[in-house]
Amino acid sequence: MPRARVEAFSDGVFAIAITLLVLDIPVPHVEPGHLADALLDNWPDYAAYAVSFAIIGLIWINHHAIFGYVARVDRGLLLLNLNLLLWTALIPWPTRLIAEFMLVGGSDERAAALVYALTMTLMGASFGLMWLYITHRPEVGAVARLTPSQLRSSTRRFVAGAPLYALSIGLALVSAPACLAVNALLAIYYALPTGGAMVHISETEG
Amino acid sequence: MPRARVEAFSDGVFAIAITLLVLDIPVPHVEPGHLADALLDNWPDYAAYAVSFAIIGLIWINHHAIFGYVARVDRGLLLLNLNLLLWTALIPWPTRLIAEFMLVGGSDERAAALVYALTMTLMGASFGLMWLYITHRPEVGAVARLTPSQLRSSTRRFVAGAPLYALSIGLALVSAPACLAVNALLAIYYALPTGGAMVHISETEG
Amino acid sequence: MPRARVEAFSDGVFAIAITLLVLDIPVPHVEPGHLADALLDNWPDYAAYAVSFAIIGLIWINHHAIFGYVARVDRGLLLLNLNLLLWTALIPWPTRLIAEFMLVGGSDERAAALVYALTMTLMGASFGLMWLYITHRPEVGAVARLTPSQLRSSTRRFVAGAPLYALSIGLALVSAPACLAVNALLAIYYALPTGGAMVHISETEG
Amino acid sequence: MPRARVEAFSDGVFAIAITLLVLDIPVPHVEPGHLADALLDNWPDYAAYAVSFAIIGLIWINHHAIFGYVARVDRGLLLLNLNLLLWTALIPWPTRLIAEFMLVGGSDERAAALVYALTMTLMGASFGLMWLYITHRPEVGAVARLTPSQLRSSTRRFVAGAPLYALSIGLALVSAPACLAVNALLAIYYALPTGGAMVHISETEG
Repeated sequence: MPRARVEAFSDGVFAIAITLLVLDIPVPHVEPGHLADALLDNWPDYAAYAVSFAIIGLIWINHHAIFGYVARVDRGLLLLNLNLLLWTALIPWPTRLIAEFMLVGGSDERAAALVYALTMTLMGASFGLMWLYITHRPEVGAVARLTPSQLRSSTRRFVAGAPLYALSIGLALVSAPACLAVNALLAIYYALPTGGAMVHISETEG
Repeated sequence: MPRARVEAFSDGVFAIAITLLVLDIPVPHVEPGHLADALLDNWPDYAAYAVSFAIIGLIWINHHAIFGYVARVDRGLLLLNLNLLLWTALIPWPTRLIAEFMLVGGSDERAAALVYALTMTLMGASFGLMWLYITHRPEVGAVARLTPSQLRSSTRRFVAGAPLYALSIGLALVSAPACLAVNALLAIYYALPTGGAMVHISETEG
Repeated sequence: MPRARVEAFSDGVFAIAITLLVLDIPVPHVEPGHLADALLDNWPDYAAYAVSFAIIGLIWINHHAIFGYVARVDRGLLLLNLNLLLWTALIPWPTRLIAEFMLVGGSDERAAALVYALTMTLMGASFGLMWLYITHRPEVGAVARLTPSQLRSSTRRFVAGAPLYALSIGLALVSAPACLAVNALLAIYYALPTGGAMVHISETEG
Repeated sequence: MPRARVEAFSDGVFAIAITLLVLDIPVPHVEPGHLADALLDNWPDYAAYAVSFAIIGLIWINHHAIFGYVARVDRGLLLLNLNLLLWTALIPWPTRLIAEFMLVGGSDERAAALVYALTMTLMGASFGLMWLYITHRPEVGAVARLTPSQLRSSTRRFVAGAPLYALSIGLALVSAPACLAVNALLAIYYALPTGGAMVHISETEG
């Protein structure tokens, strides 16, 4: 399968998942005169929307960076990519969960945050797995275009996703807002330029 | 109509249908303190999501394999393709049905599983029909690129879909989880490489 | 704006609208043991899904046929195209309306069918308007590629949409199923090959 | 990242957001015999649908105009573009809010209109910010293709969005229908041809 069609399909899923996030923001049904208060009270909905939007947006950017090193799409890569899409397309659901239960406290808040952190961790692990597959299969990846130090830096970055997101699993057991905040920080981390594959691509192909 | 535009439109429908599956996973509304239990009890939602996700993902992969042999899109192929899209775009609905009624037992469980199995069977039949149309219309299909044994193998594989999915109709009358499990096995079967058109394409064009 | 980007955006809207139709099919909430009956009783949902799916699918096919004659996209064409998209993207709503009220009888059934027929009429009028704009603006349309008889035949066909769909407005006042059936017949009519632009394109560019 | 992939992803988000607007139009649940009345009473739903549809459609058209001057996509532009997408993808939510509370009067109507006007203002500001980034970064923008007067005119137009939409914030405190009407006028303003970048592009590249 040509690389372009895999990228187009993946972009389609990313674009839809990121746009479906808006369905997670409810229209309050309240007694007359209380809409403004209800809208302000719903700030977890907006926070969860923004964080998940940033995460999916950065998955899209980094997915492109990774596919810039794919020379040939084989069946294994197709399935690993579908696996990444499965976790990414799921994101609107834990986003709704964490938004709705963010402030309730107790075991419900922890359960919702746990599902959010777990989804991100599995998405991050899928990402790292795909990167390792591309860089370890000479017939799939064109990693010769990376210097050894760029390769190391990119691998560190992409494989670090799962353990970094896993840190937020621990925080989920303490506080849902803290868990969401850590995920926001991770989004910022992945938005920053580095010395690895991502920057390399954006500076030479952009 | 150029082949590329038919593929792009079909990919769009596949990407949207696969991403809409997440809307089938409910956010539990429970008494405080019972979210974790409710989330665990909802495992049929996750199982149905994963199986339907895999099925639509493999429809996408195999659709591309099939269109790799299309030399010219005529009106008949357009309509047969729309027919395939109609059944594929429907999948989020039986997915919700089987997830919601998977564990209720009795005639409701059977009815929900039956609708799921029937939808997959009709999708599989639409797929086989399209393959037969492409391979039997010399002005549409470029099957000369296949060796006779590859052609036989691909035809067996693509035409087998409907009867294989139909097997799960029988199972639907026994148990919804068993019906879903068989559909998962079929997804795995269609994910495996074979000697037919699919592999041929991924090995020469990938 | 390049023609390709207008076509890609329009195809995106068509693909999404056609796939959102599935959200119009409800999961019945009934007393235990009555799911099968409820599913059978819901046949208007499936009929409305199939008819609207066919209509949007044929809008897509004919939209491509029309754009095959566009030499240059100007602002007027962009706005007329947005107008067509507005009515097409609306279709999931009257589809839900007519499905839900198809069998209730009385003024409710008539109102729902009327909205359905009216939406299709306005969509058809938008289509005809766009065709007239393309064929009457020498700097926009490349109609010289059509023989005079093909041009006449295509114009008849595309401009006939609005009055033909308007006929179903009359039927809406009698019976919603009859109104839906006429819309199904119109879909079949637009699916048939003719001597006009559509066939011309599919036979020379396909 | 190649410009084409950023445009395709953005177009995907625009196409999905514009098509999701239809989910904002409810199917009335009323006593038998009152559907027609309820459908007429729901005119704010149709008005909000049409205005938001026009706004997203014009974001798409102007987004293309702007990207026609992008010579190179860097990380800053990617993030500014994601920021624009975040506000655009949000539009279905304030659309539902303003439609539902447009006629209720009092503080609820004001709050809903305020959220609508605020979303549009932030979307307009994101747009203006992106334009300024493109025109002030010689390695990103190819503004040399614009004459100084075209550049001034386009900058005026694109940077004016935020303050113009902000005017509707004031109106939101008076009347939701007036606020929506001003947004409709702004859509018409951005649909009109001018002497700036937009027209320049559509006349030379169309």
